[in-house]
Amino acid sequence: MSHHTAAITDVVAYMDQLGQQARAASATLRRLDTARKNAALLATAAQLEQARPRLLAANEADLVRGRENGLDAALLDRLALTDARIDAMIEGLHQVAALPDPVGEVDGLRYRPSGIQVGQMRVPLGVIGIIYESRPNVTVEAASLCLKSGNACILRGGSEARDSNAAIAACLQAGLAEAGVPEAAVQVVATTDRAAVGRLIAMPEYVDVIIPRGGKSLIERITREARVPVIKHLDGVCHVYIDATADRDKALAIALNAKTHRYGTCNTMETLLVDAALAAELLPRLAAAYAEHHVELRGCPRTREILPQAVEASEEDWHAEYLAPVLAIRVVDGIDAAMAHIERYGSQHTDAIVTEQYALARRFMAEVDSSSVIVNASTRFADGFEYGLGAEIGISTDKLHARGPVGLEGLTTRKYVVFGDGHIRE
Amino acid sequence: MSHHTAAITDVVAYMDQLGQQARAASATLRRLDTARKNAALLATAAQLEQARPRLLAANEADLVRGRENGLDAALLDRLALTDARIDAMIEGLHQVAALPDPVGEVDGLRYRPSGIQVGQMRVPLGVIGIIYESRPNVTVEAASLCLKSGNACILRGGSEARDSNAAIAACLQAGLAEAGVPEAAVQVVATTDRAAVGRLIAMPEYVDVIIPRGGKSLIERITREARVPVIKHLDGVCHVYIDATADRDKALAIALNAKTHRYGTCNTMETLLVDAALAAELLPRLAAAYAEHHVELRGCPRTREILPQAVEASEEDWHAEYLAPVLAIRVVDGIDAAMAHIERYGSQHTDAIVTEQYALARRFMAEVDSSSVIVNASTRFADGFEYGLGAEIGISTDKLHARGPVGLEGLTTRKYVVFGDGHIRE
Repeated sequence: MSHHTAAITDVVAYMDQLGQQARAASATLRRLDTARKNAALLATAAQLEQARPRLLAANEADLVRGRENGLDAALLDRLALTDARIDAMIEGLHQVAALPDPVGEVDGLRYRPSGIQVGQMRVPLGVIGIIYESRPNVTVEAASLCLKSGNACILRGGSEARDSNAAIAACLQAGLAEAGVPEAAVQVVATTDRAAVGRLIAMPEYVDVIIPRGGKSLIERITREARVPVIKHLDGVCHVYIDATADRDKALAIALNAKTHRYGTCNTMETLLVDAALAAELLPRLAAAYAEHHVELRGCPRTREILPQAVEASEEDWHAEYLAPVLAIRVVDGIDAAMAHIERYGSQHTDAIVTEQYALARRFMAEVDSSSVIVNASTRFADGFEYGLGAEIGISTDKLHARGPVGLEGLTTRKYVVFGDGHIRE
Repeated sequence: MSHHTAAITDVVAYMDQLGQQARAASATLRRLDTARKNAALLATAAQLEQARPRLLAANEADLVRGRENGLDAALLDRLALTDARIDAMIEGLHQVAALPDPVGEVDGLRYRPSGIQVGQMRVPLGVIGIIYESRPNVTVEAASLCLKSGNACILRGGSEARDSNAAIAACLQAGLAEAGVPEAAVQVVATTDRAAVGRLIAMPEYVDVIIPRGGKSLIERITREARVPVIKHLDGVCHVYIDATADRDKALAIALNAKTHRYGTCNTMETLLVDAALAAELLPRLAAAYAEHHVELRGCPRTREILPQAVEASEEDWHAEYLAPVLAIRVVDGIDAAMAHIERYGSQHTDAIVTEQYALARRFMAEVDSSSVIVNASTRFADGFEYGLGAEIGISTDKLHARGPVGLEGLTTRKYVVFGDGHIRE
């Protein structure tokens, strides 16, 4: 399977062919009934189950090559398939099959004074291009969400996972074929040539939207060069603001959970803002709790008056997405200063307030312009599963189309439907 | 007022300043209550009323210059302000003030198994750049919709309307000031230098979305060069398909209305598809009706067998948006051939079927991928006012974010709101 690439000499022509095939498949997928889409998902799950030895062998080839190429331990970990990870892929397919089909749902159908009825019907976007890095399980996740939402997809995984992705692609093709779904519904790009990405993001005639998943530099480059709309995730510089009116125990629990539940996720708190009226009382208790988790604290001067052990925070710290056991702490004078800090340094991802005062909660909710705004709960809840989307293709930090966690609905759009009985405009 | 432009030498610096001011104003607008936004709209209406002589004088200066520059009659007509058109602008402001405020509306708030409540709150996009051509009333329309939806806007009208737009801008500024709304909520670009457009569409740090309104070449250029998302309208190649199961009288009325109600609008039918089983019976009646309206008919060979007076249609006719009393007619074999034609030649704007058969209506509704899909009514209904949006900034032929007529809701986005009581993730 790793030799597919040898035959592809004209990358642009190859990508155009994938695009044409995807566009043709999308016309069929658009009208495919829910039962058949679910059948394809479950057939793919069965194929993965049968293909375990082949998947593990293909992954081993990727891992061997990765070690030879000097990939670091974190990258090798993301690349590795294990029986547990194959279980999770199979379970994911069953979960997506069990989700309601968003396609065809009609909202707001009502009569107009002219006598026509007007509503909006949810329909697939068409063709989705997904560009991702080392984790091969993304191949199954992305394919399953696109299929369930009636979209064709073109998947471009990382070159380091090429054998794993090819083995997974074979399972997907078999599953689609078994259910009678066009095989071009899911196409995995079979070349590691980087020109394939350049073409994928620049063919609006075949591709309706690009979803890049990966490091910031990848996403910035794709956003800059894409000729089609991009749904993307950039930074997650998330804040928790603890107001003087906060319940102390809730504040401690939330501030600890938001930082230490997981360090590497985009909804992890990176900066803690503490009301000056509460700082002297609360910061020592918080610092003791963080010390147990070996979290490095970086504070503003007022923080360091209370916590001399904290490192002095620089301007960069307020912009930083550490993704690590490091926390910036700033003492602020009330909610206005907290919101001003978030406005200036935040990334509009997820921001939370801890307060028992109704008016402050109401203001924070209305005024903070982030994809998730939270009162009295951990930022870690900003997640498609926790929000009840059932699945998540990513968390969008864009404002248009999809903002925050993106599930099946974010992979659809709405057209107007009009029902008349010979109505004409006068 | 026409001398503003003399002072602007560094266009990029000037546009950056507008951008910064708009960004700052948007933070205030986001949290502005409905009453104050409405007050600004009504104060602007009063300002326009008082400024009638100044508006007409400024417009006269534009018209004189336009005639000197050899603008054609259609362009001069679009450019002209009359008392009736000023009335319509004033009435429009009252209508937008009367619309419900979309900002802050929360959908789907429900408890999750974790105990948190999650919903989605409608919020402004931020800063909107609007680029348009000769009609000065767009200045008021665009400003009022952006203001009501809580967005700051930067408006770039056509150079031919510069004096009219400056006079209208003065009324807007006075209206905003009177209501205590930041004047940078609405900024009219005071230079006709084309570099201003180039900068406006390339400053994502200040502008969240660009809405171009105008000819196709303007829109294509902006889409190609923009560094921020664009909500746009391209072609309206709209179809009516008359099935053999259609009620003849409804079919005649709809086909006539869809073509002849107005020729220059994007939702006007450009191609009529007639089921072969019905063509010999219906086409002569239709041709007689079109003849009364002096509509030129261009037909496929099967059409011309029935209507020899029709011109022979070329391949370009199926792609054409005539915006004129010209109609392409094709005889097709049933709904599948009709939908295949629409898929191939349509612009995904608005397409209608005329049928009395439930199953055909249901299929057309589900399978045609256009922003408006219509059963038994004229394509001319595809319009924000007819759909009940109350106002319309344009009709989007994009799929992402806003599809079809775009009103206040299309100028907003939704953020997630989470209410907890000390909840943390386990």
